[in-house]
Amino acid sequence: MTDTNSSSPSRRSLLGWGGAGLALGAAAAGGAVAMARTEDDTEPAGSAIAFHGPHQAGIATPVQDRLHFAAFDVTTEDRDAFVRLLKDWTEAARRMTAGHAVGEGAYGGLAEAPPDDTGEALGLKPSRLTLTIGFGPSLFEKFGLADRRPEALVDLPKFAGDNLDKNRSGGDLCVQACADDPQVAVHAVRNLARIGFGKVVIRWSQLGFGKTSSTTPEAQTPRNLMGFKDGTRNIAGTETDRLKKFVWVDGKDGPPWMAGGSYLVARRIRMHIETWDRTSLQEQEDIFGRDKGEGAPVGKAKERDEPFLKAMKPDAHVRLAHPDTNHGATILRRGFSFTDGTDGLGRLDAGLFFLAYQRDVREGFIPIQRSLATDALNEYIQHVGSALFAIPPGVRDKDDWWGRTLFSGEA
Amino acid sequence: MTDTNSSSPSRRSLLGWGGAGLALGAAAAGGAVAMARTEDDTEPAGSAIAFHGPHQAGIATPVQDRLHFAAFDVTTEDRDAFVRLLKDWTEAARRMTAGHAVGEGAYGGLAEAPPDDTGEALGLKPSRLTLTIGFGPSLFEKFGLADRRPEALVDLPKFAGDNLDKNRSGGDLCVQACADDPQVAVHAVRNLARIGFGKVVIRWSQLGFGKTSSTTPEAQTPRNLMGFKDGTRNIAGTETDRLKKFVWVDGKDGPPWMAGGSYLVARRIRMHIETWDRTSLQEQEDIFGRDKGEGAPVGKAKERDEPFLKAMKPDAHVRLAHPDTNHGATILRRGFSFTDGTDGLGRLDAGLFFLAYQRDVREGFIPIQRSLATDALNEYIQHVGSALFAIPPGVRDKDDWWGRTLFSGEA
Repeated sequence: MTDTNSSSPSRRSLLGWGGAGLALGAAAAGGAVAMARTEDDTEPAGSAIAFHGPHQAGIATPVQDRLHFAAFDVTTEDRDAFVRLLKDWTEAARRMTAGHAVGEGAYGGLAEAPPDDTGEALGLKPSRLTLTIGFGPSLFEKFGLADRRPEALVDLPKFAGDNLDKNRSGGDLCVQACADDPQVAVHAVRNLARIGFGKVVIRWSQLGFGKTSSTTPEAQTPRNLMGFKDGTRNIAGTETDRLKKFVWVDGKDGPPWMAGGSYLVARRIRMHIETWDRTSLQEQEDIFGRDKGEGAPVGKAKERDEPFLKAMKPDAHVRLAHPDTNHGATILRRGFSFTDGTDGLGRLDAGLFFLAYQRDVREGFIPIQRSLATDALNEYIQHVGSALFAIPPGVRDKDDWWGRTLFSGEA
Repeated sequence: MTDTNSSSPSRRSLLGWGGAGLALGAAAAGGAVAMARTEDDTEPAGSAIAFHGPHQAGIATPVQDRLHFAAFDVTTEDRDAFVRLLKDWTEAARRMTAGHAVGEGAYGGLAEAPPDDTGEALGLKPSRLTLTIGFGPSLFEKFGLADRRPEALVDLPKFAGDNLDKNRSGGDLCVQACADDPQVAVHAVRNLARIGFGKVVIRWSQLGFGKTSSTTPEAQTPRNLMGFKDGTRNIAGTETDRLKKFVWVDGKDGPPWMAGGSYLVARRIRMHIETWDRTSLQEQEDIFGRDKGEGAPVGKAKERDEPFLKAMKPDAHVRLAHPDTNHGATILRRGFSFTDGTDGLGRLDAGLFFLAYQRDVREGFIPIQRSLATDALNEYIQHVGSALFAIPPGVRDKDDWWGRTLFSGEA
């Protein structure tokens, strides 16, 4: 019962909970949220993240605890209907990220009609929900968009060791839902899928239960399922210069409609954790090029000490992934651990759902992943899913919508 | 960096983090945990739940936020080796639930040997982790245990509408891991599986991301993925009399080795949420016998108002599941919502992983589930996995171990 006694606004109180279906528009959306803070992030765990801005939220935003990622295929050939869907999605995303239900809510509207919202997030806090949309290469084969496809939205090459399942790869669209409460993230993806019925269908989706990266300055890097910290020198949300240099597309990079956007690589990386768990500590540390406890690079004391790459084995992961090995290539990592039950051999189907944002994948993920062809880690991991999406700029204000710059031709 | 500056003990500080592999036994385990509280529970989210007691933790314990449930099959025929495993598991469970790493930890011991702990929970709080073991009917076909199988550990009958996948059903053993942090729950199951290598193998496992039941007195019932509250009159962990009557086995119920134990039914219930989401609000409320907003029974104002069953449709879920319809049959519910990606038709593979504890399944789940044969909800759900386990009594003290009463013959 603590929730109803609490003074912090919840989805429930925003909805005028307990009344007989109050109009949602009348509910006040303001009010400070006094909540516990999460381990290493700068925003209260229950608060709302601003949806409007020059860039989409969910990229430089401090990484939330949980993920639901969905790739969609478009099933309509009607451009107007698709644009209408993007507008409807934008409005729903605007509401959900603020902690509101979709439309009239789960019990507003007519009793004879399906509710506008599926209801399972009623009473839950906004939970720092962010929703980030992306457009896959295949979308540009539709709706007369071929000449608007950015050059940077390449077809990813085949990398050494790839074992990609096409049912976990690609997609015309993606939505990345991140939140501190998984029910809030799942609710958001489900409601977007519901709104898209008849126009889009989920191609694949992935839940992530634990973040493996931080975009908070000086934060400890969370551990992956190999028990290691990886990607220490991630780009922080406060590093404006590095974001500008490595993450945000500017107007000169390609088509004007992408200015303020980014490119997202998603890779489902299965870990053979049972084999890893029978590997000696020394070998594990040699493979990463870090000690397991602190996460310090070989020969150093602290996680954030500058690595001395030549002290590491030539096939150490840190050495091969480091910008110095790759002409400065740098990505913003936002990956999550996953465990999807068990495979047919009694092994956990677990690993890293790798999400990397960058200004140009040809200067980011592609050279880094090529460098990792000789990574000692490859004995213990396999890339089983892959997708690349153009992430359009942010939604500016209440009249703007996801994809407007692509479809309207105006920046 | 907040974690290292914090005064609250974490797995990291308990391990003497930052040193050069200090002996873990020397680390102090005491100290109060000052943490944010979860929405409706009585324990701080980061604290440790006592492992020792007359009953296993994880049953009457306030329900944690996340679940990792694993069913195992035994692959060894060596009774002594299996008993040794149960002792090793007990010791590992004792350590992990207190927020420690397994054995010498992730970087103790010899560099030439695999670490005793896989490491991904280092630095995380105990997170109210509970580990609960159960023995399936098939275990009693092994190790000469046939005459010790409780009569109450029946083979579950086939129920109307069952569509069970044998790869998601049964198991010689189960471990239910509940915690407020999913990484802590996943870490625990993974490390038990690792310790069991060569003796047991995971048969199936299930992650649950959102609790759907509460065992906290007067708490709001969390919503399931249909957006409804269900199972309002659950047994609270403080209701000693109801626990004694409906949950805990006593010495007269069957074999003395089960005194203080319970029986667990696990059912994977897939929800056809896309169909449900296109159903009118009125029909949804008629099907449950509650309103969607408040969760009040038909004609009542509040969730916890006593339902008037005859005001509901004859096939309403609440009416058919209510103790008054089933000669008083009552279970302790501990289910979790799941979303396991997408099926081949673009639908979310989502639903309820139903976990119910009871003193005797013949007076609990079986009559209730038979009554639900005509449940209007059946159009929208399907039971696709099923298992039943005898839950032995708790581990009394540091010399006791999971299953001792079964294997030693002493109560």
